[in-house]
Amino acid sequence: MTNKTQTTATVINGVDRDKLFGTVDLIKGAPQLARFRFNVHNEWQDGAHNRSTVHGFFGAGTNLEHAVKFELDSDEPAILLGQDQGPGAGEYLLHALAACVTTSMVYHAAARGIAIEEVESAIEGDCDLRGFLGIDPNVRNGFQEIRMNFRIKADVSDEQLQELRMLGQQYSPMLDTISHGVPVKVAAERMV
Amino acid sequence: MTNKTQTTATVINGVDRDKLFGTVDLIKGAPQLARFRFNVHNEWQDGAHNRSTVHGFFGAGTNLEHAVKFELDSDEPAILLGQDQGPGAGEYLLHALAACVTTSMVYHAAARGIAIEEVESAIEGDCDLRGFLGIDPNVRNGFQEIRMNFRIKADVSDEQLQELRMLGQQYSPMLDTISHGVPVKVAAERMV
Repeated sequence: MTNKTQTTATVINGVDRDKLFGTVDLIKGAPQLARFRFNVHNEWQDGAHNRSTVHGFFGAGTNLEHAVKFELDSDEPAILLGQDQGPGAGEYLLHALAACVTTSMVYHAAARGIAIEEVESAIEGDCDLRGFLGIDPNVRNGFQEIRMNFRIKADVSDEQLQELRMLGQQYSPMLDTISHGVPVKVAAERMV
Repeated sequence: MTNKTQTTATVINGVDRDKLFGTVDLIKGAPQLARFRFNVHNEWQDGAHNRSTVHGFFGAGTNLEHAVKFELDSDEPAILLGQDQGPGAGEYLLHALAACVTTSMVYHAAARGIAIEEVESAIEGDCDLRGFLGIDPNVRNGFQEIRMNFRIKADVSDEQLQELRMLGQQYSPMLDTISHGVPVKVAAERMV
């Protein structure tokens, strides 16, 4: 390329490409730095209302913290016997998916030098309460299908637009988690 | 039972049992009312920062709305090249799981007349960035394992305490979704 300004532009889509490539190089040389452990701590409030705090995490070989301690309130609407003091668990999961596929698309586009102007997505998931309520053992408790519809604004061909979608779809950690499943271990002890 | 006060106590764990049993009876007679569709709308802000709005949903045969429109901001911490303006997608997914298993435990305990005093949980998930970064195709992008540790305060035997855990584990829609996986369809169109 002849345009020096373009070739040295390090931030694309709000992502610092130098830092991104630096991270990739670092991890190639020391794979153990790639291990991350995320966690939340949840406290039941009443009924369907509970609250998670999000603060510390492990990554790059050390214990780290977010800049602030985040609080997430979950509840259910009145029709599901809650007080509507926050989104429901299903909506939080759909948000996790939307956030992750969007970020994956934006980061991997930045790595390839593709500028994105706007991204929006509508995510929906179907479930049948007969599972949760134990009314019909043939109905699963969880989502039966999730659909994500993206609208993308970028100066790219139609083919490249679908490649952007594929980047999000292919690399998203939460899409992988939710579409393929992950082992979940559950333990309980008495609070004294 | 001879204690009228106990047999007529309708709210346990903040859950109105009369309404809960009423919902079960209603759905047994009209299974189509059990179909719910949850959705979020997400807008990319910049870099790893994006925002979902949560407002309408479909359930009990009609379009419904939460009491307020909720907004959820997602971002990544500096070490993952973000600005830390919200929890990351992985943390939102862990919160969805914590919220759902807790609510499932609380509701199903209420249905059985078991009073719970307190519930806390610590949820953590392991992932390896080599998947997301495309460094090693043998490393999955998503969580490799998720662990949930509950602490429960209730006037029950040790055996019943584990039954409470099992109620959450067995009936949680999001635990089912995340541990068994769900088909996710992704489409994209150009924003004009």
